Amino acid sequence: MVSAVLGWTDQEQEVARRAFDRAHSRAAMGIIRAVQAHASRMDSVEECWKLHDFLSIQRHEIEGRFDFRLPGLLFVFASLVKDGLLQVEELEGLESDKLNKIQAMSRM
Amino acid sequence: MVSAVLGWTDQEQEVARRAFDRAHSRAAMGIIRAVQAHASRMDSVEECWKLHDFLSIQRHEIEGRFDFRLPGLLFVFASLVKDGLLQVEELEGLESDKLNKIQAMSRM
Repeated sequence: MVSAVLGWTDQEQEVARRAFDRAHSRAAMGIIRAVQAHASRMDSVEECWKLHDFLSIQRHEIEGRFDFRLPGLLFVFASLVKDGLLQVEELEGLESDKLNKIQAMSRM
Repeated sequence: MVSAVLGWTDQEQEVARRAFDRAHSRAAMGIIRAVQAHASRMDSVEECWKLHDFLSIQRHEIEGRFDFRLPGLLFVFASLVKDGLLQVEELEGLESDKLNKIQAMSRM
């Protein structure tokens, strides 16, 4: 079925959604582990505020970065590949033009 | 020695400082324990943001509350006693007029 929205077939959207969710969950796990490691060695209120600053940055980044709207999705995937949160192979099923663009942008 | 600043003798300022620091450290320990308990059971990014919200509130409260300037110190102590972060007995050494005011305000 090819009811494409802005050039994405249903099947591509499924592949994209799965890869997106996987990267999101990896990013989340990274934050959770960092918070737990920091929390376990906290012994002053200043350390609490460092954790607060860390979470402010992460929240801003995650909320800005994980945006599933199709028009910007190639950029999103490129940045996730660049930062090691996603492998290009996990995007298999997208047309090769999209994969090439993601790969090229991820190297910039 | 009675080189009082705004009605606080040197000795009273020492008592006040010690009690203030003790309450601050209790408040800090309360936050640290709460963060550690929350962190240990975090399993989603939403839980990280809940922790972030919690720390935002605590930081705002602690930074607003722990103000050692002498003119407002009776109010600070009253609020600390009210919230169980300080016992009136730990302020022994302050003149009885101050102690009475703190005790009265802590019951409001």
